[in-house]
Amino acid sequence: MKPYTQLTQAERSEEYARLQQEFIALKAKGLSLNMARGKPGKAQLDLVSDLFGLMQRPEDYVSGGIDVRNYGEMSGVPAARKLFAEILDCKPEQVFVGGNSSLQLMYDTVARAYTHGLLHSPRPWCREETVKWLCPSPGYDRHFKITEVFGFQLITIPMTPQGPDMNAVEEAVKDPAVKGIWCVPKYSNPDGIIYSDETIRRMAALSPAAPDFTILWDNAYCVHEFEGDYVPFPDILSLCEKAGRPDMVIEFASTSKITLPGAGVACFACSQANLAYLESLLVPQIISFDKVNQQRHVLYLQDKAHTLALMKKHAAIMAPKFRAVVDTLDREIAPLEIASWQRPKGGYFVSLNAMPGTAKRTLALCKEAGVTMTGAGATFPYGKDPQDSNIRIAPSLPPVEELEQAIAVFCVCLRMAALERLGV
Amino acid sequence: MKPYTQLTQAERSEEYARLQQEFIALKAKGLSLNMARGKPGKAQLDLVSDLFGLMQRPEDYVSGGIDVRNYGEMSGVPAARKLFAEILDCKPEQVFVGGNSSLQLMYDTVARAYTHGLLHSPRPWCREETVKWLCPSPGYDRHFKITEVFGFQLITIPMTPQGPDMNAVEEAVKDPAVKGIWCVPKYSNPDGIIYSDETIRRMAALSPAAPDFTILWDNAYCVHEFEGDYVPFPDILSLCEKAGRPDMVIEFASTSKITLPGAGVACFACSQANLAYLESLLVPQIISFDKVNQQRHVLYLQDKAHTLALMKKHAAIMAPKFRAVVDTLDREIAPLEIASWQRPKGGYFVSLNAMPGTAKRTLALCKEAGVTMTGAGATFPYGKDPQDSNIRIAPSLPPVEELEQAIAVFCVCLRMAALERLGV
Repeated sequence: MKPYTQLTQAERSEEYARLQQEFIALKAKGLSLNMARGKPGKAQLDLVSDLFGLMQRPEDYVSGGIDVRNYGEMSGVPAARKLFAEILDCKPEQVFVGGNSSLQLMYDTVARAYTHGLLHSPRPWCREETVKWLCPSPGYDRHFKITEVFGFQLITIPMTPQGPDMNAVEEAVKDPAVKGIWCVPKYSNPDGIIYSDETIRRMAALSPAAPDFTILWDNAYCVHEFEGDYVPFPDILSLCEKAGRPDMVIEFASTSKITLPGAGVACFACSQANLAYLESLLVPQIISFDKVNQQRHVLYLQDKAHTLALMKKHAAIMAPKFRAVVDTLDREIAPLEIASWQRPKGGYFVSLNAMPGTAKRTLALCKEAGVTMTGAGATFPYGKDPQDSNIRIAPSLPPVEELEQAIAVFCVCLRMAALERLGV
Repeated sequence: MKPYTQLTQAERSEEYARLQQEFIALKAKGLSLNMARGKPGKAQLDLVSDLFGLMQRPEDYVSGGIDVRNYGEMSGVPAARKLFAEILDCKPEQVFVGGNSSLQLMYDTVARAYTHGLLHSPRPWCREETVKWLCPSPGYDRHFKITEVFGFQLITIPMTPQGPDMNAVEEAVKDPAVKGIWCVPKYSNPDGIIYSDETIRRMAALSPAAPDFTILWDNAYCVHEFEGDYVPFPDILSLCEKAGRPDMVIEFASTSKITLPGAGVACFACSQANLAYLESLLVPQIISFDKVNQQRHVLYLQDKAHTLALMKKHAAIMAPKFRAVVDTLDREIAPLEIASWQRPKGGYFVSLNAMPGTAKRTLALCKEAGVTMTGAGATFPYGKDPQDSNIRIAPSLPPVEELEQAIAVFCVCLRMAALERLGV
């Protein structure tokens, strides 16, 4: 196989005609495969079935003297705060444990900034002329959407192999309308990049013009290696504190991809001053989150070491899926030089950059052949990829056999789109 | 015992001196009793311990073809929507099942109105000059607080034995700045009043000036009889529909006082047009609420009849507590003519109206003697009872023995406050 750019027009036409036949045959299979979202597969859910056998004895309902079944203890069960603090390497008194969704905690944080302002806000953000928000891209579509629905102006920050381009970030925060940034510091969504120590240090050392500039640090994949050993990460809270801005960051995490996506436990962590302020805004909203499920998770996960042991079991399920995707790309696509991709060691995605102008077409073809992918452009603000190039592949949900079919379809579509672009 | 108003100054002084001795003796006991919040007691929590034995077999995780452990199905597990629809006498497709807190669903509804507007809003409420909100009082402090923190102007609507004074409501809604009303239609908090059919009919027939006027219908105690048989209630959704304004009401309910306060399931119900709109605003906030707990509740509660059977067990625990309170008041206070109170057959509270100007003093004395009560004034907008009269008694938490002590303390304090007011 030669690189497509080195093919003659005639060779491209011939190749395209061959692929069209293949495409028709694939379509005829009537496939219905999904690589759209970072949804764990059934085998992963079955890993934690014994979670529900807990909480049977009366003493299981009592945690540190608190009856977890009743109202109260808004910040969460102390044992759950301790567990998350150990995982995030921060202090239990910096942790607020919520319900089953970290996305909800993030949305609510932005909503509170909008309706009431954050700790250092001169006014609620709904009273600001303009609010701008930094979006390292490619990034997580649901993050971008939250800041979009509140009418913020989204600013694309390029991603580098070390994380967000910190020169661009440092320049951007000179604008007092810039109020914050989305970050996924470990196995970033979708690139699977781990922010370098230098990137994290510079992030914590930011000196923004806005007094209420806030880093929303979504540590979604903090213990989510599927290849190799656990990779430690610095505690962003203490780094910000050391740099003199302890209130500049709010960190998020959850057990959605440790125990169960639909019924896990989420948390946020921040300075105690921030926590006191945010709790004062939380009091009118909720009496307490589900502490029974918090306690169930405390009994089940026990501590960080035990949690990491569980993650090894997830890794055993996830690794073959990622290998199936990346090996196929290496074999089928690499020689054609029509795309590049990351080879992540953790997280939930493979990020692929197709030949500019071909991402949408590739995914339209995939859809036609029964393979659902994350919409093209989704990884950029407003769902618009200026290059029409980035494609997020989510290999976690389908079993390996289905995944192999899906990625085969994807390769055919990617090739067809590239040939169409080059001219056939 | 004679009515206090018929006592001479000397008799009052003598009585007061006697009560002071009693108060000192009570204080010396070093009590620590709580009648502040509608918090179920331990015996009630223990009623449902077998809730946690469910969800053991693989088929328990699958509800109508949906794996409840994974992401998705934002409106809730269909079986849970069906269960709440049966309890509320509405349609499953009108029900959204959320997390563990109906307060959170109410707060979020008001927050969404503020940030984005409701279905018929000309603009988000944060862009309105003034938003006014009707608060039937005495009412639920947490309701009032939600609308207070968004800066709405709270308007007191008097409560009558039939529910909110509908003449006052009909007059108030002529003002286009009036955007809504809080209602607890069955066993109102704190009066324990069931809105009459006439009140409910007039509520549904309102013709407000604001196109987005919304009734927040908190059916918190819809199946919460502790005396006598289940009292049916009309479906407010279909009444509003028949009256031509199907989108004017959003109803809320939860199992917080059916199963567990900290780990129950909450829902809201509204027209399908409203639901579609509210869900479009929910999409950026959360992927799905805890469907495992929803399914656990479906398996546990089964249907309305089975739920009502469980409520009979709650009633057996609650009734003696309410009797202890009301019988003591009848015996100790009624002859003195210094207060009046409701004798509810359901709900969580006894609402007492003390001699005007004595509620705060009564509760300050209670606190001194180690009995915590809901703060005086809490049942009115901004926590200010213009009469300083209404006191909310929450008898559910303490065991009967403790409750008897607490109510004895309360009676002494109420009498002392009345005597101080009359002059001693």
